Amino acid sequence: MRIYLGGIETGGTKVVCGIGTEDGELVERTSFPTTTPNETLNQIFMFFHNKNIKAIGIGSFGPIDLNKESKTFGYIKNTPKPYWSQLNLLGELTKRFPFPVELDTDVNVAALGEMKWGNAKGLDSCIYITVGTGIGVGAVTEGVVLHGMSHSEMGHILVRRHPKDHFKGICPYHRDCLEGLASGPAIEERWGEKGEDLIEYPELLEFESFYLAQAISNYILILSPKKIIIGGGVMKKKKLLPIIRDKVKQNLNDYVQSKELDKLDSYIVSPGLGDNAGLLGAIALAERSC
Amino acid sequence: MRIYLGGIETGGTKVVCGIGTEDGELVERTSFPTTTPNETLNQIFMFFHNKNIKAIGIGSFGPIDLNKESKTFGYIKNTPKPYWSQLNLLGELTKRFPFPVELDTDVNVAALGEMKWGNAKGLDSCIYITVGTGIGVGAVTEGVVLHGMSHSEMGHILVRRHPKDHFKGICPYHRDCLEGLASGPAIEERWGEKGEDLIEYPELLEFESFYLAQAISNYILILSPKKIIIGGGVMKKKKLLPIIRDKVKQNLNDYVQSKELDKLDSYIVSPGLGDNAGLLGAIALAERSC
Ligand SMILES: Nc1ncnc2c1ncn2[C@@H]1O[C@H](COP(=O)(O)OP(=O)(O)O)[C@@H](O)[C@H]1O
Ligand SMILES: Nc1ncnc2c1ncn2[C@@H]1O[C@H](COP(=O)(O)OP(=O)(O)O)[C@@H](O)[C@H]1O
Ligand SMILES: [Zn+2]
Ligand SMILES: [Zn+2]
Repeated sequence: MRIYLGGIETGGTKVVCGIGTEDGELVERTSFPTTTPNETLNQIFMFFHNKNIKAIGIGSFGPIDLNKESKTFGYIKNTPKPYWSQLNLLGELTKRFPFPVELDTDVNVAALGEMKWGNAKGLDSCIYITVGTGIGVGAVTEGVVLHGMSHSEMGHILVRRHPKDHFKGICPYHRDCLEGLASGPAIEERWGEKGEDLIEYPELLEFESFYLAQAISNYILILSPKKIIIGGGVMKKKKLLPIIRDKVKQNLNDYVQSKELDKLDSYIVSPGLGDNAGLLGAIALAERSC
Repeated sequence: MRIYLGGIETGGTKVVCGIGTEDGELVERTSFPTTTPNETLNQIFMFFHNKNIKAIGIGSFGPIDLNKESKTFGYIKNTPKPYWSQLNLLGELTKRFPFPVELDTDVNVAALGEMKWGNAKGLDSCIYITVGTGIGVGAVTEGVVLHGMSHSEMGHILVRRHPKDHFKGICPYHRDCLEGLASGPAIEERWGEKGEDLIEYPELLEFESFYLAQAISNYILILSPKKIIIGGGVMKKKKLLPIIRDKVKQNLNDYVQSKELDKLDSYIVSPGLGDNAGLLGAIALAERSC
Protein backbone atom coordinates (compact mmCIF):
# COMPACT_ATOMS: atom_id res chain seq x y z
CA MET A 1 0.00 0.00 0.00
CA ARG A 2 1.26 3.44 -0.84
CA ILE A 3 1.76 6.02 1.86
CA TYR A 4 0.31 9.48 1.35
CA LEU A 5 1.68 12.63 2.92
CA GLY A 6 0.31 16.16 3.18
CA GLY A 7 2.13 19.38 2.42
CA ILE A 8 1.19 23.00 3.12
CA GLU A 9 2.98 26.07 1.88
CA THR A 10 1.74 29.21 3.60
CA GLY A 11 2.90 32.31 1.75
CA GLY A 12 2.19 35.96 2.32
CA THR A 13 -0.30 36.08 -0.54
CA LYS A 14 -1.42 32.49 -1.06
CA VAL A 15 -1.52 29.07 0.54
CA VAL A 16 -0.84 25.87 -1.39
CA CYS A 17 -1.99 22.50 -0.05
CA GLY A 18 -1.24 19.14 -1.59
CA ILE A 19 -1.00 15.42 -1.13
CA GLY A 20 1.84 13.35 -2.45
CA THR A 21 3.55 10.02 -2.21
CA GLU A 22 6.85 9.13 -0.58
CA ASP A 23 8.37 9.34 -4.05
CA GLY A 24 7.42 12.97 -4.49
CA GLU A 25 4.52 12.35 -6.84
CA LEU A 26 1.73 14.89 -6.36
CA VAL A 27 -1.73 13.36 -6.44
CA GLU A 28 -3.74 16.41 -5.44
CA ARG A 29 -3.06 20.13 -5.18
CA THR A 30 -5.04 23.27 -4.42
CA SER A 31 -4.37 26.88 -3.59
CA PHE A 32 -6.27 29.83 -2.14
CA PRO A 33 -5.48 33.38 -0.96
CA THR A 34 -4.01 33.95 2.50
CA THR A 35 -6.64 36.01 4.37
CA THR A 36 -7.28 36.00 8.12
CA PRO A 37 -5.72 33.16 10.12
CA ASN A 38 -9.16 31.83 11.03
CA GLU A 39 -10.50 31.62 7.51
CA THR A 40 -7.22 30.38 6.08
CA LEU A 41 -6.77 27.66 8.70
CA ASN A 42 -10.35 26.51 8.09
CA GLN A 43 -9.66 26.14 4.40
CA ILE A 44 -6.59 24.09 5.21
CA PHE A 45 -8.58 21.82 7.55
CA MET A 46 -11.31 21.36 4.96
CA PHE A 47 -8.79 20.35 2.31
CA PHE A 48 -7.23 17.66 4.47
CA HIS A 49 -10.49 16.46 6.05
CA ASN A 50 -10.95 12.71 5.70
CA LYS A 51 -7.83 12.35 3.61
CA ASN A 52 -5.86 9.23 4.25
CA ILE A 53 -2.48 10.73 5.10
CA LYS A 54 0.21 9.76 7.57
CA ALA A 55 1.73 13.17 8.37
CA ILE A 56 1.77 16.80 7.29
CA GLY A 57 4.66 19.17 6.66
CA ILE A 58 4.31 22.96 6.56
CA GLY A 59 6.64 25.50 5.05
CA SER A 60 5.63 28.91 6.31
CA PHE A 61 6.48 32.52 5.67
CA GLY A 62 8.40 33.96 8.60
CA PRO A 63 9.81 34.93 10.87
CA ILE A 64 8.71 31.89 12.85
CA ASP A 65 10.03 30.61 16.16
CA LEU A 66 11.78 27.30 15.52
CA ASN A 67 13.68 27.09 18.78
CA LYS A 68 12.30 23.93 20.37
CA GLU A 69 13.13 25.19 23.85
CA SER A 70 11.19 28.40 23.42
CA LYS A 71 7.74 28.97 24.93
CA THR A 72 6.59 30.29 21.59
CA PHE A 73 7.98 27.40 19.51
CA GLY A 74 5.95 27.12 16.31
CA TYR A 75 4.54 30.66 16.52
CA ILE A 76 4.71 33.22 13.76
CA LYS A 77 6.69 36.15 15.17
CA ASN A 78 6.17 39.82 14.40
CA THR A 79 5.16 40.11 10.76
CA PRO A 80 3.81 43.07 8.82
CA LYS A 81 1.00 40.75 7.63
CA PRO A 82 -2.14 41.84 9.54
CA TYR A 83 -3.55 39.36 12.13
CA TRP A 84 -0.77 36.78 11.71
CA SER A 85 1.71 38.08 14.31
CA GLN A 86 2.01 35.84 17.40
CA LEU A 87 -0.21 33.16 15.86
CA ASN A 88 0.53 29.68 17.22
CA LEU A 89 0.57 28.14 13.76
CA LEU A 90 1.99 24.77 14.73
CA GLY A 91 -0.28 24.54 17.78
CA GLU A 92 -3.43 25.27 15.78
CA LEU A 93 -2.57 22.57 13.30
CA THR A 94 -1.47 19.86 15.74
CA LYS A 95 -4.65 20.51 17.75
CA ARG A 96 -6.87 19.70 14.82
CA PHE A 97 -4.95 17.03 12.92
CA PRO A 98 -4.78 13.46 14.23
CA PHE A 99 -1.30 12.84 12.75
CA PRO A 100 2.19 14.34 13.19
CA VAL A 101 2.73 17.88 11.92
CA GLU A 102 6.19 19.27 11.11
CA LEU A 103 6.96 22.95 10.61
CA ASP A 104 9.84 24.84 9.02
CA THR A 105 10.32 27.99 6.96
CA ASP A 106 9.09 28.10 3.36
CA VAL A 107 12.67 28.34 2.08
CA ASN A 108 14.15 25.63 4.32
CA VAL A 109 11.39 23.34 3.15
CA ALA A 110 12.04 24.24 -0.49
CA ALA A 111 15.73 23.44 0.03
CA LEU A 112 14.69 20.07 1.45
CA GLY A 113 12.44 19.41 -1.56
CA GLU A 114 15.23 20.23 -4.01
CA MET A 115 17.58 17.89 -2.12
CA LYS A 116 15.11 15.06 -2.20
CA TRP A 117 13.65 15.29 -5.68
CA GLY A 118 15.09 18.36 -7.41
CA ASN A 119 18.36 19.86 -8.50
CA ALA A 120 20.29 19.03 -5.34
CA LYS A 121 19.35 15.34 -5.35
CA GLY A 122 21.99 13.11 -3.80
CA LEU A 123 23.91 15.95 -2.19
CA ASP A 124 24.23 16.68 1.51
CA SER A 125 24.12 20.46 1.25
CA CYS A 126 22.45 23.20 -0.76
CA ILE A 127 20.91 26.60 -0.40
CA TYR A 128 17.59 27.69 -1.89
CA ILE A 129 17.19 31.39 -2.62
CA THR A 130 13.94 33.07 -3.58
CA VAL A 131 13.96 36.62 -4.91
CA GLY A 132 10.38 37.85 -4.84
CA THR A 133 8.36 40.08 -2.52
CA GLY A 134 11.14 39.40 -0.04
CA ILE A 135 14.47 37.63 -0.35
CA GLY A 136 14.53 34.37 1.55
CA VAL A 137 17.19 31.68 1.77
CA GLY A 138 16.95 28.17 3.16
CA ALA A 139 19.94 25.95 3.78
CA VAL A 140 20.84 22.34 4.36
CA THR A 141 24.38 21.81 5.68
CA GLU A 142 26.01 18.42 6.30
CA GLY A 143 22.66 16.75 5.63
CA VAL A 144 20.77 18.76 8.25
CA VAL A 145 18.43 21.72 7.80
CA LEU A 146 20.23 24.75 9.23
CA HIS A 147 18.45 26.29 12.20
CA GLY A 148 20.95 27.55 14.77
CA MET A 149 19.18 29.84 17.21
CA SER A 150 15.92 29.48 15.22
CA HIS A 151 16.33 30.04 11.50
CA SER A 152 18.59 32.16 9.36
CA GLU A 153 17.64 35.46 7.78
CA MET A 154 20.10 35.57 4.94
CA GLY A 155 17.94 37.90 2.84
CA HIS A 156 18.88 40.73 5.18
CA ILE A 157 22.68 40.62 4.96
CA LEU A 158 24.50 43.90 4.55
CA VAL A 159 25.91 44.43 1.08
CA ARG A 160 28.23 46.95 -0.49
CA ARG A 161 26.48 49.30 -2.82
CA HIS A 162 26.79 49.46 -6.56
CA PRO A 163 28.76 52.69 -7.10
CA LYS A 164 26.06 54.06 -9.43
CA ASP A 165 23.07 53.07 -7.30
CA HIS A 166 21.74 55.95 -5.21
CA PHE A 167 18.44 54.32 -4.26
CA LYS A 168 17.96 54.53 -0.51
CA GLY A 169 16.60 51.02 0.05
CA ILE A 170 13.26 49.88 1.48
CA CYS A 171 13.93 47.45 4.33
CA PRO A 172 12.10 48.82 7.38
CA TYR A 173 14.80 47.32 9.63
CA HIS A 174 18.05 47.90 7.74
CA ARG A 175 17.11 50.20 4.87
CA ASP A 176 19.73 49.09 2.34
CA CYS A 177 20.33 45.43 3.20
CA LEU A 178 20.09 42.89 0.35
CA GLU A 179 16.28 42.68 0.53
CA GLY A 180 16.06 46.45 0.82
CA LEU A 181 17.95 46.90 -2.45
CA ALA A 182 17.18 43.86 -4.58
CA SER A 183 13.71 42.43 -3.78
CA GLY A 184 10.77 42.84 -6.18
CA PRO A 185 9.34 45.80 -4.23
CA ALA A 186 12.80 47.47 -4.23
CA ILE A 187 12.85 47.22 -8.03
CA GLU A 188 9.34 48.65 -8.19
CA GLU A 189 10.21 51.56 -5.93
CA ARG A 190 13.52 52.32 -7.66
CA TRP A 191 12.13 52.35 -11.19
CA GLY A 192 8.49 53.26 -10.55
CA GLU A 193 7.04 50.13 -12.12
CA LYS A 194 6.63 46.49 -11.17
CA GLY A 195 9.51 44.26 -12.27
CA GLU A 196 7.32 42.23 -14.59
CA ASP A 197 6.41 45.42 -16.50
CA LEU A 198 9.99 46.59 -16.91
CA ILE A 199 12.07 45.40 -19.84
CA GLU A 200 15.48 43.89 -19.14
CA TYR A 201 17.33 47.13 -19.52
CA PRO A 202 21.04 47.21 -18.75
CA GLU A 203 20.96 49.16 -15.50
CA LEU A 204 18.30 46.92 -13.96
CA LEU A 205 20.26 43.80 -14.86
CA GLU A 206 23.51 45.38 -13.69
CA PHE A 207 22.27 46.43 -10.24
CA GLU A 208 20.22 43.30 -9.60
CA SER A 209 23.01 40.91 -10.62
CA PHE A 210 25.55 42.97 -8.67
CA TYR A 211 23.65 42.53 -5.40
CA LEU A 212 22.59 38.93 -5.91
CA ALA A 213 26.08 37.84 -7.03
CA GLN A 214 27.60 39.56 -4.03
CA ALA A 215 25.22 37.81 -1.67
CA ILE A 216 25.81 34.45 -3.34
CA SER A 217 29.59 34.94 -3.14
CA ASN A 218 29.31 35.52 0.59
CA TYR A 219 27.00 32.52 1.02
CA ILE A 220 29.63 30.40 -0.76
CA LEU A 221 32.46 31.75 1.40
CA ILE A 222 30.45 31.16 4.57
CA LEU A 223 28.43 27.99 3.93
CA SER A 224 30.34 26.33 1.11
CA PRO A 225 27.13 24.66 -0.21
CA LYS A 226 27.33 21.96 -2.88
CA LYS A 227 24.51 23.50 -4.92
CA ILE A 228 22.83 26.90 -5.15
CA ILE A 229 19.24 27.06 -6.32
CA ILE A 230 17.71 30.41 -7.10
CA GLY A 231 14.11 31.18 -8.03
CA GLY A 232 11.27 33.61 -7.28
CA GLY A 233 9.46 36.24 -9.33
CA VAL A 234 12.44 38.48 -10.03
CA MET A 235 14.43 35.57 -11.51
CA LYS A 236 11.84 35.39 -14.30
CA LYS A 237 14.12 37.92 -15.96
CA LYS A 238 15.97 35.15 -17.76
CA LYS A 239 19.03 37.24 -18.55
CA LEU A 240 19.84 37.60 -14.86
CA LEU A 241 21.12 34.13 -14.03
CA PRO A 242 24.05 34.01 -16.49
CA ILE A 243 25.18 37.50 -15.45
CA ILE A 244 24.99 36.50 -11.79
CA ARG A 245 27.22 33.48 -12.50
CA ASP A 246 29.82 35.69 -14.23
CA LYS A 247 29.89 38.15 -11.36
CA VAL A 248 30.21 35.39 -8.74
CA LYS A 249 33.23 34.12 -10.65
CA GLN A 250 34.75 37.60 -10.69
CA ASN A 251 34.07 38.13 -7.00
CA LEU A 252 35.63 34.87 -5.85
CA ASN A 253 38.54 35.29 -8.25
CA ASP A 254 39.52 31.59 -8.00
CA TYR A 255 40.27 31.86 -4.30
CA VAL A 256 37.94 29.00 -3.43
CA GLN A 257 38.73 25.92 -5.49
CA SER A 258 36.33 23.05 -5.99
CA LYS A 259 34.99 20.94 -8.81
CA GLU A 260 31.56 22.56 -8.26
CA LEU A 261 32.90 26.07 -8.83
CA ASP A 262 34.61 24.93 -12.02
CA LYS A 263 31.16 24.45 -13.52
CA LEU A 264 29.05 27.40 -12.44
CA ASP A 265 26.36 26.54 -15.01
CA SER A 266 25.45 23.46 -13.04
CA TYR A 267 26.30 24.96 -9.64
CA ILE A 268 24.01 28.01 -9.60
CA VAL A 269 20.72 26.84 -11.07
CA SER A 270 16.94 27.33 -11.17
CA PRO A 271 14.69 25.13 -9.01
CA GLY A 272 14.37 21.63 -10.47
CA LEU A 273 10.87 21.37 -9.01
CA GLY A 274 9.84 24.77 -10.40
CA ASP A 275 6.89 26.26 -8.56
CA ASN A 276 6.37 23.03 -6.62
CA ALA A 277 9.64 23.18 -4.66
CA GLY A 278 7.87 24.49 -1.57
CA LEU A 279 4.93 22.09 -1.68
CA LEU A 280 7.04 19.03 -2.40
CA GLY A 281 9.51 20.16 0.24
CA ALA A 282 6.66 20.30 2.76
CA ILE A 283 5.82 16.72 1.78
CA ALA A 284 9.48 15.75 2.21
CA LEU A 285 9.35 17.36 5.65
CA ALA A 286 6.24 15.36 6.52
CA GLU A 287 8.06 12.17 5.59
CA ARG A 288 10.71 12.91 8.20
CA SER A 289 8.16 12.33 10.95
CA CYS A 290 7.10 8.89 9.69
CA MET B 1 43.36 3.63 32.88
CA ARG B 2 43.30 7.09 31.39
CA ILE B 3 43.31 7.56 27.67
CA TYR B 4 45.77 10.03 26.16
CA LEU B 5 45.26 11.87 22.91
CA GLY B 6 47.59 13.93 20.75
CA GLY B 7 46.92 17.36 19.28
CA ILE B 8 48.82 19.35 16.66
CA GLU B 9 48.18 22.93 15.66
CA THR B 10 50.12 23.88 12.53
CA GLY B 11 50.15 27.64 12.08
CA GLY B 12 51.85 29.81 9.53
CA THR B 13 54.55 30.85 11.99
CA LYS B 14 54.60 28.14 14.65
CA VAL B 15 53.50 24.60 15.41
CA VAL B 16 52.08 23.57 18.78
CA CYS B 17 52.00 19.91 19.81
CA GLY B 18 50.45 18.53 22.94
CA ILE B 19 49.07 15.54 24.76
CA GLY B 20 45.88 15.63 26.76
CA THR B 21 43.23 13.52 28.37
CA GLU B 22 39.66 12.88 27.27
CA ASP B 23 38.64 15.57 29.76
CA GLY B 24 40.67 18.23 28.06
CA GLU B 25 43.47 18.31 30.59
CA LEU B 26 46.83 19.07 28.98
CA VAL B 27 49.67 16.91 30.30
CA GLU B 28 52.39 18.00 27.89
CA ARG B 29 52.84 20.85 25.42
CA THR B 30 55.57 22.15 23.17
CA SER B 31 55.95 24.55 20.29
CA PHE B 32 58.50 25.33 17.58
CA PRO B 33 58.68 27.52 14.47
CA THR B 34 57.12 26.35 11.21
CA THR B 35 60.03 25.99 8.76
CA THR B 36 60.23 23.57 5.82
CA PRO B 37 57.70 20.73 5.74
CA ASN B 38 60.49 18.16 6.15
CA GLU B 39 62.06 19.69 9.22
CA THR B 40 58.71 20.60 10.76
CA LEU B 41 57.20 17.14 10.24
CA ASN B 42 60.31 15.58 11.77
CA GLN B 43 59.93 17.68 14.87
CA ILE B 44 56.31 16.59 15.13
CA PHE B 45 57.28 12.92 14.80
CA MET B 46 59.99 13.28 17.41
CA PHE B 47 57.59 14.86 19.88
CA PHE B 48 55.07 12.03 19.60
CA HIS B 49 57.64 9.24 19.37
CA ASN B 50 56.99 6.48 21.90
CA LYS B 51 54.13 8.39 23.47
CA ASN B 52 51.27 6.26 24.62
CA ILE B 53 48.40 7.90 22.71
CA LYS B 54 45.30 6.52 21.01
CA ALA B 55 44.80 9.06 18.22
CA ILE B 56 45.99 12.42 16.93
CA GLY B 57 44.01 15.44 15.75
CA ILE B 58 45.50 18.23 13.63
CA GLY B 59 44.21 21.73 13.10
CA SER B 60 46.07 23.21 10.17
CA PHE B 61 46.40 26.56 8.45
CA GLY B 62 44.72 26.49 5.06
CA PRO B 63 43.45 26.29 2.54
CA ILE B 64 43.37 22.51 2.85
CA ASP B 65 41.40 19.99 0.83
CA LEU B 66 38.80 18.44 3.14
CA ASN B 67 36.61 16.91 0.47
CA LYS B 68 36.80 13.19 1.20
CA GLU B 69 36.03 12.32 -2.43
CA SER B 70 38.88 14.39 -3.78
CA LYS B 71 42.18 12.88 -4.97
CA THR B 72 44.01 15.51 -2.96
CA PHE B 73 42.04 14.99 0.27
CA GLY B 74 44.20 16.07 3.20
CA TYR B 75 46.58 18.16 1.07
CA ILE B 76 47.47 21.77 1.74
CA LYS B 77 46.33 23.72 -1.33
CA ASN B 78 48.01 26.76 -2.83
CA THR B 79 49.42 28.82 0.01
CA PRO B 80 51.79 31.78 -0.04
CA LYS B 81 53.88 29.90 2.57
CA PRO B 82 56.99 28.65 0.72
CA TYR B 83 57.32 24.83 0.26
CA TRP B 84 53.95 24.00 1.83
CA SER B 85 51.71 24.19 -1.25
CA GLN B 86 50.45 20.76 -2.44
CA LEU B 87 51.90 18.99 0.60
CA ASN B 88 50.03 15.81 1.49
CA LEU B 89 49.87 16.72 5.17
CA LEU B 90 47.39 14.06 6.24
CA GLY B 91 49.18 11.39 4.17
CA GLU B 92 52.59 12.18 5.65
CA LEU B 93 51.21 11.89 9.15
CA THR B 94 49.10 8.74 8.69
CA LYS B 95 52.11 7.08 7.01
CA ARG B 96 54.27 7.56 10.05
CA PHE B 97 51.84 7.26 12.96
CA PRO B 98 50.47 3.84 14.00
CA PHE B 99 47.14 5.30 15.20
CA PRO B 100 44.24 7.21 13.63
CA VAL B 101 44.91 10.78 12.48
CA GLU B 102 42.14 13.35 11.97
CA LEU B 103 42.57 16.63 10.11
CA ASP B 104 40.56 19.85 9.98
CA THR B 105 41.27 23.57 9.71
CA ASP B 106 42.83 25.41 12.65
CA VAL B 107 39.64 27.43 13.17
CA ASN B 108 37.21 24.52 12.84
CA VAL B 109 39.25 22.67 15.41
CA ALA B 110 39.27 25.69 17.72
CA ALA B 111 35.47 25.92 17.40
CA LEU B 112 35.31 22.25 18.36
CA GLY B 113 37.54 22.84 21.39
CA GLU B 114 35.40 25.75 22.58
CA MET B 115 32.27 23.60 22.21
CA LYS B 116 33.76 20.78 24.19
CA TRP B 117 35.59 22.59 26.99
CA GLY B 118 35.31 26.32 26.41
CA ASN B 119 32.77 29.09 26.06
CA ALA B 120 30.37 27.17 23.82
CA LYS B 121 30.16 24.15 26.12
CA GLY B 122 26.82 22.35 25.94
CA LEU B 123 25.69 24.13 22.76
CA ASP B 124 25.22 22.57 19.34
CA SER B 125 26.50 25.50 17.32
CA CYS B 126 29.12 28.23 17.48
CA ILE B 127 31.58 30.10 15.34
CA TYR B 128 35.21 30.76 16.22
CA ILE B 129 36.79 33.86 14.66
CA THR B 130 40.47 34.69 14.76
CA VAL B 131 41.66 38.13 13.71
CA GLY B 132 45.41 37.91 13.29
CA THR B 133 47.77 37.57 10.32
CA GLY B 134 44.68 36.44 8.46
CA ILE B 135 41.02 36.33 9.41
CA GLY B 136 39.77 32.78 9.84
CA VAL B 137 36.42 31.47 10.98
CA GLY B 138 35.43 27.95 11.97
CA ALA B 139 31.86 26.83 12.48
CA VAL B 140 29.85 24.07 14.06
CA THR B 141 26.21 23.97 12.97
CA GLU B 142 23.56 21.56 14.30
CA GLY B 143 26.31 19.70 16.18
CA VAL B 144 28.43 19.07 13.09
CA VAL B 145 31.60 20.84 11.93
CA LEU B 146 30.66 22.80 8.81
CA HIS B 147 32.51 21.65 5.71
CA GLY B 148 30.25 21.83 2.66
CA MET B 149 32.37 21.55 -0.49
CA SER B 150 35.55 21.48 1.65
CA HIS B 151 35.72 24.22 4.27
CA SER B 152 34.44 27.75 4.48
CA GLU B 153 36.52 30.86 3.89
CA MET B 154 34.51 33.37 5.85
CA GLY B 155 37.47 35.70 6.36
CA HIS B 156 37.21 36.70 2.71
CA ILE B 157 33.61 37.91 2.56
CA LEU B 158 32.92 41.15 0.75
CA VAL B 159 32.10 44.03 3.06
CA ARG B 160 30.84 47.54 2.59
CA ARG B 161 33.46 50.16 3.24
CA HIS B 162 33.60 52.57 6.08
CA PRO B 163 32.77 55.91 4.40
CA LYS B 164 35.98 57.49 5.71
CA ASP B 165 38.30 54.57 4.92
CA HIS B 166 40.20 55.05 1.69
CA PHE B 167 42.74 52.28 2.22
CA LYS B 168 42.89 50.07 -0.86
CA GLY B 169 43.04 46.71 0.93
CA ILE B 170 45.70 44.00 0.82
CA CYS B 171 44.04 40.70 -0.09
CA PRO B 172 45.87 39.35 -3.15
CA TYR B 173 42.61 37.73 -4.33
CA HIS B 174 39.91 40.27 -3.49
CA ARG B 175 41.81 43.39 -2.47
CA ASP B 176 39.24 44.87 -0.07
CA CYS B 177 37.49 41.82 1.35
CA LEU B 178 37.23 41.55 5.16
CA GLU B 179 40.74 40.13 5.54
CA GLY B 180 42.08 42.69 3.08
CA LEU B 181 40.76 45.54 5.23
CA ALA B 182 40.78 44.29 8.82
CA SER B 183 43.56 41.70 9.39
CA GLY B 184 46.70 42.54 11.36
CA PRO B 185 48.76 43.15 8.20
CA ALA B 186 46.00 45.45 6.84
CA ILE B 187 46.27 47.53 10.02
CA GLU B 188 50.05 47.63 9.66
CA GLU B 189 49.87 48.71 6.03
CA ARG B 190 47.15 51.31 6.62
CA TRP B 191 48.84 53.01 9.57
CA GLY B 192 52.50 52.18 8.90
CA GLU B 193 53.09 50.34 12.16
CA LYS B 194 52.24 46.94 13.61
CA GLY B 195 48.95 46.82 15.51
CA GLU B 196 50.67 46.02 18.79
CA ASP B 197 52.69 49.23 18.52
CA LEU B 198 49.69 51.45 17.77
CA ILE B 199 47.68 52.93 20.61
CA GLU B 200 43.90 52.45 20.60
CA TYR B 201 43.18 55.64 18.78
CA PRO B 202 39.62 56.36 17.73
CA GLU B 203 39.95 55.86 13.99
CA LEU B 204 41.63 52.48 14.37
CA LEU B 205 38.92 51.28 16.74
CA GLU B 206 36.20 52.76 14.54
CA PHE B 207 37.34 51.12 11.28
CA GLU B 208 38.25 47.79 12.83
CA SER B 209 35.00 47.47 14.78
CA PHE B 210 33.00 48.62 11.74
CA TYR B 211 34.33 45.77 9.59
CA LEU B 212 34.29 43.06 12.24
CA ALA B 213 30.78 43.98 13.42
CA GLN B 214 29.54 43.95 9.86
CA ALA B 215 31.02 40.51 9.24
CA ILE B 216 29.62 39.18 12.53
CA SER B 217 26.18 40.58 11.68
CA ASN B 218 26.23 38.70 8.40
CA TYR B 219 27.46 35.51 10.07
CA ILE B 220 24.51 35.79 12.47
CA LEU B 221 22.01 36.38 9.66
CA ILE B 222 23.41 33.44 7.69
CA LEU B 223 24.43 30.83 10.28
CA SER B 224 22.41 31.86 13.33
CA PRO B 225 25.07 30.41 15.70
CA LYS B 226 24.34 30.05 19.41
CA LYS B 227 27.69 31.54 20.42
CA ILE B 228 30.34 33.71 18.75
CA ILE B 229 33.91 33.44 19.96
CA ILE B 230 36.46 35.93 18.75
CA GLY B 231 40.19 35.97 19.41
CA GLY B 232 43.53 36.46 17.66
CA GLY B 233 46.27 39.09 17.95
CA VAL B 234 44.20 42.08 16.86
CA MET B 235 41.58 41.40 19.55
CA LYS B 236 44.27 42.13 22.14
CA LYS B 237 43.06 45.69 21.74
CA LYS B 238 40.65 45.26 24.63
CA LYS B 239 38.47 48.22 23.72
CA LEU B 240 37.43 46.55 20.46
CA LEU B 241 35.07 43.84 21.73
CA PRO B 242 32.52 46.12 23.47
CA ILE B 243 32.40 48.45 20.46
CA ILE B 244 31.90 45.48 18.15
CA ARG B 245 28.94 44.33 20.27
CA ASP B 246 27.34 47.79 20.08
CA LYS B 247 27.71 47.94 16.33
CA VAL B 248 26.31 44.42 15.84
CA LYS B 249 23.25 45.52 17.80
CA GLN B 250 22.87 48.61 15.62
CA ASN B 251 23.30 46.61 12.42
CA LEU B 252 20.72 43.96 13.27
CA ASN B 253 18.33 46.58 14.64
CA ASP B 254 16.25 43.98 16.51
CA TYR B 255 15.23 42.20 13.34
CA VAL B 256 16.48 38.84 14.58
CA GLN B 257 15.02 38.02 17.98
CA SER B 258 16.46 35.45 20.32
CA LYS B 259 17.40 35.14 23.96
CA GLU B 260 21.06 34.96 22.92
CA LEU B 261 20.92 38.33 21.15
CA ASP B 262 19.29 39.90 24.20
CA LYS B 263 22.57 39.38 26.03
CA LEU B 264 25.35 40.30 23.64
CA ASP B 265 27.91 40.38 26.48
CA SER B 266 27.63 36.63 26.83
CA TYR B 267 26.93 35.99 23.13
CA ILE B 268 30.01 37.53 21.52
CA VAL B 269 32.93 36.53 23.73
CA SER B 270 36.67 35.81 23.91
CA PRO B 271 37.90 32.20 23.72
CA GLY B 272 37.30 30.36 26.98
CA LEU B 273 40.38 28.25 26.32
CA GLY B 274 42.54 31.28 25.57
CA ASP B 275 45.61 30.42 23.51
CA ASN B 276 44.92 26.70 23.92
CA ALA B 277 41.66 26.65 21.93
CA GLY B 278 43.41 25.26 18.85
CA LEU B 279 45.50 22.65 20.66
CA LEU B 280 42.64 21.42 22.85
CA GLY B 281 40.37 21.45 19.81
CA ALA B 282 42.86 19.20 17.99
CA ILE B 283 42.68 16.85 20.98
CA ALA B 284 38.88 16.98 20.84
CA LEU B 285 39.10 16.11 17.15
CA ALA B 286 41.37 13.15 17.95
CA GLU B 287 38.79 11.87 20.40
CA ARG B 288 36.22 11.68 17.61
CA SER B 289 38.17 8.86 16.01
CA CYS B 290 38.29 6.70 19.16
N1 LIG C 1 9.47 39.13 -14.74
C1 LIG C 1 9.73 39.75 -13.60
N2 LIG C 1 10.80 40.59 -13.50
C2 LIG C 1 11.09 41.22 -12.33
N3 LIG C 1 10.34 41.11 -11.23
C3 LIG C 1 9.26 40.30 -11.26
C4 LIG C 1 8.91 39.58 -12.44
N4 LIG C 1 7.81 38.85 -12.15
C5 LIG C 1 7.48 39.10 -10.87
N5 LIG C 1 8.35 39.98 -10.33
C6 LIG C 1 8.33 40.51 -8.95
O1 LIG C 1 8.49 39.43 -8.04
C7 LIG C 1 7.72 39.65 -6.86
C8 LIG C 1 6.82 38.46 -6.59
O2 LIG C 1 7.63 37.34 -6.38
P1 LIG C 1 7.04 35.87 -6.23
O3 LIG C 1 8.21 34.98 -6.02
O4 LIG C 1 6.20 35.58 -7.43
O5 LIG C 1 6.06 35.93 -5.00
P2 LIG C 1 6.31 35.93 -3.40
O6 LIG C 1 7.71 36.37 -3.12
O7 LIG C 1 5.29 36.90 -2.87
O8 LIG C 1 6.05 34.52 -2.99
C9 LIG C 1 6.95 40.94 -7.09
O9 LIG C 1 7.63 42.00 -6.43
C10 LIG C 1 7.01 41.12 -8.60
O10 LIG C 1 6.95 42.49 -8.97
N1 LIG D 1 47.71 44.46 20.55
C1 LIG D 1 47.53 44.32 19.23
N2 LIG D 1 46.75 45.20 18.55
C2 LIG D 1 46.56 45.07 17.23
N3 LIG D 1 47.12 44.11 16.47
C3 LIG D 1 47.89 43.21 17.09
C4 LIG D 1 48.13 43.26 18.48
N4 LIG D 1 48.92 42.21 18.82
C5 LIG D 1 49.17 41.53 17.67
N5 LIG D 1 48.55 42.14 16.63
C6 LIG D 1 48.59 41.71 15.21
O1 LIG D 1 48.01 40.40 15.12
C7 LIG D 1 48.69 39.64 14.11
C8 LIG D 1 49.15 38.31 14.69
O2 LIG D 1 48.04 37.61 15.10
P1 LIG D 1 48.12 36.25 15.92
O3 LIG D 1 46.72 35.79 16.15
O4 LIG D 1 48.96 36.51 17.14
O5 LIG D 1 48.94 35.27 14.99
P2 LIG D 1 48.53 34.39 13.70
O6 LIG D 1 47.32 34.97 13.08
O7 LIG D 1 49.74 34.50 12.82
O8 LIG D 1 48.33 33.02 14.25
C9 LIG D 1 49.84 40.50 13.61
O9 LIG D 1 49.47 41.12 12.39
C10 LIG D 1 50.02 41.54 14.73
O10 LIG D 1 50.52 42.78 14.22
ZN1 LIG E 1 16.75 44.07 6.04
ZN1 LIG F 1 40.17 38.03 0.28
